[in-house]
Amino acid sequence: MKALEKYSWRVTQANSLLCVGLDSAFEHIPEPYISHEYPLFTFNRWIIEQTHEYVSAYKPNIAFYEARGDRGITSLRMTLEYLRQHHPDILTICDAKRGDVSSTSEAYASAIFDWFGFDAVTINPYLGKDAMQPFLKRADKGCIILCRTSNPGSGDLQDLQVDGKPLWQVVAHKARDEWNDNGNCMLVVGATYPAELKQVREITGDMTLLIPGIGAQGGDVEQVVKAGLNQDDAGLIISASRSVIFADDPAAAARSLRDQINQYR
Amino acid sequence: MKALEKYSWRVTQANSLLCVGLDSAFEHIPEPYISHEYPLFTFNRWIIEQTHEYVSAYKPNIAFYEARGDRGITSLRMTLEYLRQHHPDILTICDAKRGDVSSTSEAYASAIFDWFGFDAVTINPYLGKDAMQPFLKRADKGCIILCRTSNPGSGDLQDLQVDGKPLWQVVAHKARDEWNDNGNCMLVVGATYPAELKQVREITGDMTLLIPGIGAQGGDVEQVVKAGLNQDDAGLIISASRSVIFADDPAAAARSLRDQINQYR
Repeated sequence: MKALEKYSWRVTQANSLLCVGLDSAFEHIPEPYISHEYPLFTFNRWIIEQTHEYVSAYKPNIAFYEARGDRGITSLRMTLEYLRQHHPDILTICDAKRGDVSSTSEAYASAIFDWFGFDAVTINPYLGKDAMQPFLKRADKGCIILCRTSNPGSGDLQDLQVDGKPLWQVVAHKARDEWNDNGNCMLVVGATYPAELKQVREITGDMTLLIPGIGAQGGDVEQVVKAGLNQDDAGLIISASRSVIFADDPAAAARSLRDQINQYR
Repeated sequence: MKALEKYSWRVTQANSLLCVGLDSAFEHIPEPYISHEYPLFTFNRWIIEQTHEYVSAYKPNIAFYEARGDRGITSLRMTLEYLRQHHPDILTICDAKRGDVSSTSEAYASAIFDWFGFDAVTINPYLGKDAMQPFLKRADKGCIILCRTSNPGSGDLQDLQVDGKPLWQVVAHKARDEWNDNGNCMLVVGATYPAELKQVREITGDMTLLIPGIGAQGGDVEQVVKAGLNQDDAGLIISASRSVIFADDPAAAARSLRDQINQYR
C-alpha cells in the first residue's frame, strides 16, 4: 500500500490528523527506562502504547538515535519493528532531512526505506531534483520535502526573493510541478508560520502537508487547522513531539491534541 | 587544536591537499573484506594504510554506514578510533549534510563531534543560521556549509537569482559575513563547477573550501586547483572517493592525485 493511501485510511479510521514525534532525547527519558539495555526503544514502546489510539503517524527524528550511537540505531530499528508488528496501519515517517548527491541519496534511501523500513522520509531540496530522485522514485514511499521550516531563523534563506516570490514558494511550486511525477510528494511547513501555510495550501491544492512545531515550538492548533486543511478536511499531518512524549501523561496529551485538532476541522 | 589549524599543519607536513572520501559502499567492497565481522571498517583500515601518506583529510559519507544499520555505524566509529590512534594529524570530516531545527541539530552535533569524534562536518544551510548554530558554536570544529554542490541538478535551487545573484553566491556571502563568528566556517563547492569555484574564492578570501567531485563525478584537477587556491597556495580540501578507494591500486591512485594537484599549485 502506498504511504499516502495508508495515511488517508488511518486518518479516517482513527479520526485523527495527529502525528507524534518520537524525538526521544536520552537526557529527557524518564528514570524507569534509563536502566534498560535499549532505553530509547523501551521508552518509545511505552509512548506508543499510551498514544497509538489517538495517532495516525509516528515521526522519530533520527538525530536523537544517532546521538546514542549504534545502540541508538538499534533502538530505532526495534521501534519500527514494533510498529510494523503491533500497529501496521500507522504511518511511519523518518525525520531525517536528508539531501546528498544521487549515489549517496541511494544509500540513504536504502537505509531509511529498506533497513529501517519507514513509509516516508523528510528531505532537503537544496541540492535539486536529481539528488532527491533516489527517494522520489520510490513511488510507494512518501517524500516530504522541506518548504518552510518551523525554526525562528528559517527565513534566512527561505524568505529570499526569487522573481518576486520567496524561496519557500518556489519550492512549493516545484514540488507541485516538477518533483511529483510519482504522486508521492508532500511538504513540510512549520506550525509557527500559519500565513505561509495558507499560501502553500493555495499553491499545492490537495497535497498532504507535514506540520511540525505544535507544542514546544509554539505553533497554534486553531490557526494551523484553519489555514492548512484541504478540500477533504484532511491533507495535514500535524506533529507534536516534546509536548506529548515528555508530558506527565502522554496519553492525555495526545488525546487532547487530537480533540483540539478535530474541534477546528 | 582547532580543525582548521590541524588541517593547515597536515597540509604542510604531507605536502598534500588531497582528501579521500571513505564512501565505502558495501556492494563495492572487495571480496576479501566482505567476510569480516565489520567489513566497512576492515576495508577502511586497509584504504587508510594504503593512502595515509598522501592524504591530509579523510571524509567518510555517513550514508554508506547508515545503509548497513547498527553494524555500519559501529564500523564508522571504529574507523574514527583507528584514525585517532594511528593518524591523529589527519583531518576527519563527517560528510553528513545535516540541517535541522536547533534542538535536533544539537543531537546531530553531539553524535558527530562527540560520539564519533569527527573534527568537521558538512551542513546544509536551507534552515538558516539558528539551525546551524549547534555546529557553528563549536569553535574547535570545522563547519563546512553546502554552497554549490557537485551534482548535475545543483542549479535547480542554487542558481535561482536573488537580487541579481544566484543563491549559491548569497550563501557564500552569508558564510563570510554572518555565519563565521568563530572563524570555523568552510564551504562546499563541487569540482564540477570551476567557474563558480573561482567566484566563491573571490567572495570568501582565504576561507578553506571543500571540493568534492574529482574523479568519478568528472571534476578536472587543473581547473580546480587554478580556480580555487587562496593566497597561500592552499585553502582547498580536494576530495576524491570512488576513484581512489575502489581503484585497483588505491595507494597509486592517491599518490598520483596528490602529485597532480601539486603540479598545478
